[in-house]
Amino acid sequence: MASTPPPHDDALHRRGLLFILSSPSGAGKTTISRRLLAHDGHIQMSVSVTTRPMRPGEVDGKDYYFTDQPDFDTKVRDGQFLEWAHVFGHSYGTPKAQIKAGLKTGQDFLFDIDWQGTQQLYQKAETDVVRVFLLPPSLDELRRRLTARATDSAEVIASRMARAQAEISHWDGYDYVVVNDDIDVCFAKVVQILAAERLRRARQTGLIGFVRELMKPEI
Amino acid sequence: MASTPPPHDDALHRRGLLFILSSPSGAGKTTISRRLLAHDGHIQMSVSVTTRPMRPGEVDGKDYYFTDQPDFDTKVRDGQFLEWAHVFGHSYGTPKAQIKAGLKTGQDFLFDIDWQGTQQLYQKAETDVVRVFLLPPSLDELRRRLTARATDSAEVIASRMARAQAEISHWDGYDYVVVNDDIDVCFAKVVQILAAERLRRARQTGLIGFVRELMKPEI
Repeated sequence: MASTPPPHDDALHRRGLLFILSSPSGAGKTTISRRLLAHDGHIQMSVSVTTRPMRPGEVDGKDYYFTDQPDFDTKVRDGQFLEWAHVFGHSYGTPKAQIKAGLKTGQDFLFDIDWQGTQQLYQKAETDVVRVFLLPPSLDELRRRLTARATDSAEVIASRMARAQAEISHWDGYDYVVVNDDIDVCFAKVVQILAAERLRRARQTGLIGFVRELMKPEI
Repeated sequence: MASTPPPHDDALHRRGLLFILSSPSGAGKTTISRRLLAHDGHIQMSVSVTTRPMRPGEVDGKDYYFTDQPDFDTKVRDGQFLEWAHVFGHSYGTPKAQIKAGLKTGQDFLFDIDWQGTQQLYQKAETDVVRVFLLPPSLDELRRRLTARATDSAEVIASRMARAQAEISHWDGYDYVVVNDDIDVCFAKVVQILAAERLRRARQTGLIGFVRELMKPEI
């Protein structure tokens, strides 16, 4: 009848998850991502590989893994990416190896990606993925947030709106939806979703041994 | 360009859910259920139909719908129950009509049932069901909690343990598992699960019209 200490520490005994946050620009995704990373020690941004030139202040291996196009293309061919995309003339990809190793140790990864990246990631790692979409509180508010400067032309704003609406049109490919009408409430909801998803039985791999202990026959 | 008020009030614009809390006796299920009902205005206990005689202080239609065996059997035959069981000589069933109407208005229902009831409910209403299992923090603690009185015989305790372990053996039929080593922490986790599940896209039926508003083309 030895005492059994509960071996269910969140970080050590569960499988990590891939937490996707998508939204049209102007719906608060960047703010929510930053707060989540600052607030929670078990989630980190996935570090992408990119062919984009390094900018002043960026650190290779921290902000991105910087590489050239031939190397990137080889990695694509070798299936080293969970998802990748070509955006504004540069390539970006999520390296598979780092994610795979992290998930096993209970590390969660945050992805600030659009619906296409979300689809790719979901196809590769369905059971590890949690998809959250943020919506702006209203059409007027979305327009206001996309009007960065008073001097923006009507055409520029209309083009931003069209892009935002195209992103919104894919909202139904997500597991959770949060309307961001108050940044604090929205953040609290995102935190609740992350906390709950960590409690999914299938992720709590450490509980398998624990339940075996609970099931020991009486002596 | 009329202003669009966000029509996403939690209670009015989402489909309710069936929140199942199961655990071996001695794992805190009753305490957690009571706190949840007191804490949260949008969830209520599902009121069962039973053939068990009314006890002093009980109210028909509040604690149970009391009926006789022939009427109960007719209801079973007519498919009026989401799940039903025969326990210690009496029948208990969950009436389908009340649940069906409640779900549409965003009413959540709490079920304090065992794994067999959970299975029945899941088969009938899979997408509305959220299954949570509570585990005791250790084998020793489970034994301590099942030893209600110092005068309990070893046989009585062993039989309670066996029943608890039989229930635990079905833990893998649940969506979420929470270890109850601290009642406050456990309660907070159950609240997080409920909050997150309410944010599932598929439950937020009110968002369909809201997104349609957001997608309106620019004029």
